Amino acid sequence: MPGTQDGGAWHVRPLIAILTDYGLRDHYVGHLKAVIKLVCPEAEVIDITHDIPKYNVALASHIIKISKRYLPKKTVILAVVDPGVGGPRRNVVIETRERVYVGPDNGLLTPAASDEDPRAYEIDVNKVRIGRISHTFHGRDIYAPTAALIACGVSPEFLGDPIPFDVLVKPPIEFGRGKMIKEGLKTSVVHVDDFGNIITSLSKEALEEGLKIRVGDRVALTTDLKTWYEARYVESFSHVGVGELAVYEGSYELIEVALYMGRATDLIKGAEIVLSTVSRSSRGDCSQLSTPPTR
Amino acid sequence: MPGTQDGGAWHVRPLIAILTDYGLRDHYVGHLKAVIKLVCPEAEVIDITHDIPKYNVALASHIIKISKRYLPKKTVILAVVDPGVGGPRRNVVIETRERVYVGPDNGLLTPAASDEDPRAYEIDVNKVRIGRISHTFHGRDIYAPTAALIACGVSPEFLGDPIPFDVLVKPPIEFGRGKMIKEGLKTSVVHVDDFGNIITSLSKEALEEGLKIRVGDRVALTTDLKTWYEARYVESFSHVGVGELAVYEGSYELIEVALYMGRATDLIKGAEIVLSTVSRSSRGDCSQLSTPPTR
Amino acid sequence: MPGTQDGGAWHVRPLIAILTDYGLRDHYVGHLKAVIKLVCPEAEVIDITHDIPKYNVALASHIIKISKRYLPKKTVILAVVDPGVGGPRRNVVIETRERVYVGPDNGLLTPAASDEDPRAYEIDVNKVRIGRISHTFHGRDIYAPTAALIACGVSPEFLGDPIPFDVLVKPPIEFGRGKMIKEGLKTSVVHVDDFGNIITSLSKEALEEGLKIRVGDRVALTTDLKTWYEARYVESFSHVGVGELAVYEGSYELIEVALYMGRATDLIKGAEIVLSTVSRSSRGDCSQLSTPPTR
Repeated sequence: MPGTQDGGAWHVRPLIAILTDYGLRDHYVGHLKAVIKLVCPEAEVIDITHDIPKYNVALASHIIKISKRYLPKKTVILAVVDPGVGGPRRNVVIETRERVYVGPDNGLLTPAASDEDPRAYEIDVNKVRIGRISHTFHGRDIYAPTAALIACGVSPEFLGDPIPFDVLVKPPIEFGRGKMIKEGLKTSVVHVDDFGNIITSLSKEALEEGLKIRVGDRVALTTDLKTWYEARYVESFSHVGVGELAVYEGSYELIEVALYMGRATDLIKGAEIVLSTVSRSSRGDCSQLSTPPTR
Repeated sequence: MPGTQDGGAWHVRPLIAILTDYGLRDHYVGHLKAVIKLVCPEAEVIDITHDIPKYNVALASHIIKISKRYLPKKTVILAVVDPGVGGPRRNVVIETRERVYVGPDNGLLTPAASDEDPRAYEIDVNKVRIGRISHTFHGRDIYAPTAALIACGVSPEFLGDPIPFDVLVKPPIEFGRGKMIKEGLKTSVVHVDDFGNIITSLSKEALEEGLKIRVGDRVALTTDLKTWYEARYVESFSHVGVGELAVYEGSYELIEVALYMGRATDLIKGAEIVLSTVSRSSRGDCSQLSTPPTR
Repeated sequence: MPGTQDGGAWHVRPLIAILTDYGLRDHYVGHLKAVIKLVCPEAEVIDITHDIPKYNVALASHIIKISKRYLPKKTVILAVVDPGVGGPRRNVVIETRERVYVGPDNGLLTPAASDEDPRAYEIDVNKVRIGRISHTFHGRDIYAPTAALIACGVSPEFLGDPIPFDVLVKPPIEFGRGKMIKEGLKTSVVHVDDFGNIITSLSKEALEEGLKIRVGDRVALTTDLKTWYEARYVESFSHVGVGELAVYEGSYELIEVALYMGRATDLIKGAEIVLSTVSRSSRGDCSQLSTPPTR
């Protein structure tokens, strides 16, 4: 059906998906899109997000990894979270059998590309630039024109020399695992989303195997090893009552803590969380959240 | 003229307009767009807004209703404000003679669709899904592919069974009216916009009929029945001086309160406002806002 | 290569670039895009930014000026920063040999258009409107349909009468210069970007000529003429160490102050900055920022 409405034929246009930590307060994302349309007018652009916490390469690389399966084949992914702009880090293109990734060589792109038979190239900036290359805005001056040229059909091998994928930088952290300590399973808070849900670095498997629990069980959580909050391990935050805490696998594909119809982050504050099972004997230590203390 | 530039013919591409309470901090809106392009590469997407106050189905349904007239015919409106995700609420498509609405059955879509000869369908998730359906992200897993299939020409009747429009959930509140009390006309604050303008639930008609006033008249307003602020009922906030309060019908198609070149919300705080006429005798009770007290 | 993939031909579609101070919290930007698609379905839209500080015509006009070179020829630039909406200011189209500008006549468009051989027209609202013209939302009711008609090929001369470019309003301030005072070179803070970088009104030339410095030199800066901070004048913020202050020409094409991997605005507070050279004798007066005081 696609491509043949009205008796005519649509040409599917090349797609560029962008992810940055630029925010939307300035013209920075606008300039990326302007350059893309200047270099490849046919390209369409979608935004994954521009509100990656500043310089958080690890979180950004995780989001690229979980986003790729929803993007059409051949999509060019343009990603810029780049604390080293203007410094010596490489500019790279990674072409895989599925898609193409463009950005700085700082670990942002490698987790997504590694299982797709990747071939890497170091961008020759003189082959892609459309003017003077600034010292502060390589997204606009190097990555956007590179992504646009590729979207319009230029093969990455014309834009730079191949380099072995193995020499590319890996991200500082890969998410998934927690650490078993005496009190339970310890995990970092990697993000707070727009709903106030707390995203931990634990995968579903790490939680279930670490605590030997399954959906429906009660868990306890703490940030200071003193105050414990009771929560339920559920499939969705809507499976607890208003004002109750839910622990579940969320849309970051990591374990989250949510306060149904509220903001968990107003209640649970801290950079690390310890999760534990609720046994009969320990139950007395848990705050019962029939009325959340801070709300 | 449209469709024939350069001697060729443009095929007008299907349009999907999205409205959510997801915010732009995360990849959630990005994943909606990725799935749309995956399922219907021809579709174009525009954002109505993604900053609906969390879970505010009533405000969202009002915005959809006032937005529809600006959207081209056949637009597919994909709306997700969905506190019940993962719970038992229905997933619906409403096809009307003008457009198609896709989203949860919680009152979000019914006000816009009700006067367009609507036919409703309950989505059969097995006919639209592109993979596992998560418990927390039906926007991506159910509504986005449904909207994309319809945009690419699939008739809603292939995606689910018809259900009577009348059984669909109505929104919790419909805006427009205030309540006459002894002190004047009482209204809720339904939103504060990005300019700090205070959006009330009153329609222009409700204000003019309730207080027997017309454009040009002075009004008084209060949030606590003690401090009254004087304002002018005008056509636009630019019809008062800098630092003066204006009461007027704004772009929410509701009565707003604005402080010209300032933020009314810095001055007027409270969830309810009472508006009154300024008669000679009551004038002494009104704060004269030549210099706004808090600025 | 562009335009011929798959053996077919792409028709390059008209491009509209939008810049406003509407923010993204409301449906205001969404309605601009809806009207554009209603009037010219072929048009593509990119956002420059919608987070211009409210009513800041001077900053907006600067951003339009520095953005235009990245936009394809024939782009229609739709800009709305419009404190006078509903008042007597003119609605204008400026057609140049490069592109077309649409917006209010308040200085927003003139700096970008002035060196492009501009021809101005005052919009006849009856020739562009698609319904009732509201008193508060000329972006949707006048500028968006005007931009869309032009994008779809209507010549501006059919939409209003010519007016001399010289009678158009100039922006309140043009950026670039500072003021030499006894203590050094004084400049205004014109913006703080999403990274917390402080944008001054100085051009690179004004800084280098005013202080007789060049890249690599040390400078001192103060907001109160009492506490001085030492910084380095560099090409990019990544040329200083973590926690050090950098002074450099940034992506606003103005001199910025940044705290590498931090937010300069947490440290340097004030509406005006004085920059000075660091001579041997004055060095003792400068705070040494090995550990920034507030972090």
